Amino acid sequence: MSGNDRTPVTVIGLGSMGAALAQAFVRAGHPTTVWNRSAEKAAPLVAQGAVHHEDIADAVAASPLVIACLTTYDATLAALAPAAAALTGRTLVTLNSGTPRGARQMDDRAAGYGARFLDGAVKNVPAAVGLPDTLLYYSGDRATYDEHETTLRVLGGDTVHLGEEPDLAALYESAVGATLLPTLIGFFHGAALLSSRGLKAGSMVPYSVKWLEMIIALLPGIAEEIDSGDYSRPLSSVGNFYEGIAYDKELGEEANLDVAWTEPMHDLLRRAVAEGHREESFSVLYELLRKPAQSRV
Amino acid sequence: MSGNDRTPVTVIGLGSMGAALAQAFVRAGHPTTVWNRSAEKAAPLVAQGAVHHEDIADAVAASPLVIACLTTYDATLAALAPAAAALTGRTLVTLNSGTPRGARQMDDRAAGYGARFLDGAVKNVPAAVGLPDTLLYYSGDRATYDEHETTLRVLGGDTVHLGEEPDLAALYESAVGATLLPTLIGFFHGAALLSSRGLKAGSMVPYSVKWLEMIIALLPGIAEEIDSGDYSRPLSSVGNFYEGIAYDKELGEEANLDVAWTEPMHDLLRRAVAEGHREESFSVLYELLRKPAQSRV
Repeated sequence: MSGNDRTPVTVIGLGSMGAALAQAFVRAGHPTTVWNRSAEKAAPLVAQGAVHHEDIADAVAASPLVIACLTTYDATLAALAPAAAALTGRTLVTLNSGTPRGARQMDDRAAGYGARFLDGAVKNVPAAVGLPDTLLYYSGDRATYDEHETTLRVLGGDTVHLGEEPDLAALYESAVGATLLPTLIGFFHGAALLSSRGLKAGSMVPYSVKWLEMIIALLPGIAEEIDSGDYSRPLSSVGNFYEGIAYDKELGEEANLDVAWTEPMHDLLRRAVAEGHREESFSVLYELLRKPAQSRV
Repeated sequence: MSGNDRTPVTVIGLGSMGAALAQAFVRAGHPTTVWNRSAEKAAPLVAQGAVHHEDIADAVAASPLVIACLTTYDATLAALAPAAAALTGRTLVTLNSGTPRGARQMDDRAAGYGARFLDGAVKNVPAAVGLPDTLLYYSGDRATYDEHETTLRVLGGDTVHLGEEPDLAALYESAVGATLLPTLIGFFHGAALLSSRGLKAGSMVPYSVKWLEMIIALLPGIAEEIDSGDYSRPLSSVGNFYEGIAYDKELGEEANLDVAWTEPMHDLLRRAVAEGHREESFSVLYELLRKPAQSRV
């Protein structure tokens, strides 16, 4: 390792994302140690120059910066338990799914180990790890982030510190991620409409791409409406969407689709109209989501 | 008009989209006639060089190409009734919302008038009309499309003929459009999560943009899975999404949101797991949407 001033890194968990993280560090010339519950996943990384330890405490002890990419906070805590003493004085970064509460618990536990802690999220697929435009964000102690920022940037050129509260990354992960499942199901729904006419999903892709690009272009204006609470100058009104409900229902029935997943979205539109928001911007639906059912009459 | 070889165009309906269409034709130097139920909406276009007729039959008679941009097919039929005789021998293009069935009825009615007919859709906002990258698609008689393609391209550089069946534009309009409401509600949900912590929706926008760009990048692969029916090499599995349900519920409750709209999406995931698709690609949800509830046990 002489002549290499890059921070040694240990990657815990070699699923598809963890393996991509470890590979990015190896490629960038960081001394890289890996650990995985089933050791055979380490072999391809060892072939590229990583060091593998069977014992997680040895793996943790190998580097000042330990990045855990397991499925959950609970899985991370369970895996790291035998390495608790080894974590003292090191920086632990977690990149797993979970809730803000899970992140806060992880932060407490890391403090108990005497470790510094950052929670983060990779906002992309494993194949995008290491690319200049790939986004990762982190939350937790700013000085810890600053110390490791250059190393973390190996994982993606768009690396951001969201703030000192340790659960902000988990919060943004959930908030930003809330579009994923509905957008995909919307695409599946469209594909199912086409298939009822013998048309391929692939025929829709160029149009769907442009359509989502159009939606992307709307987001800054929508956020402004939400943040100002001013829904009076609609780009598109609640009424426009409300009037589309009948088309959606007719076409779904014609195509013999399961449209149950659209029902509560239509209910939101009906509620918005019933509450007098018909001529306002569709962004006012945001306000309705903040009124849970039990608080309504 | 001497020296102008551009096709005269009549635009029926001057809502925000219709006005944008008429303005694009005026700017491109097409002799442009406009009609609207309430005549005052014509004034800004007349100031730019359009001709306004109070009588819709006169407006239709002014141009070989008549573009109707009213709210629905029914509204279009009602408005055009007094101009039925004037439509004979002209080309009628409709750019409104509606179902494929509505488009087929419109096609029948246009044939009854002795008019040629194209149905179309503007896949963007009024402000995008006339830009080189703006998508519009049309369906109906190919020769009619070919004759007017250059004129129609004034409305957007990405102008496409989907096929001869007159209802294809309405079908693709609904299929492609099926992502809009769920994607937006997903964004509102994320904004509501942030607001429960006093954070602004605007703080999420740069991340949401990248996230949707990531989703866009997934679409070709998803369409391939759907079109091949091969869900065996998941980029992300049903199980990954299924395991996220508990986080979504916990966080929604913590933030005191109305999460009812996510329930049937979670039901789809539960059904997919129950039917043995846990390790398959999440794209298999497409297959579930094609199995309506009444066909299940």
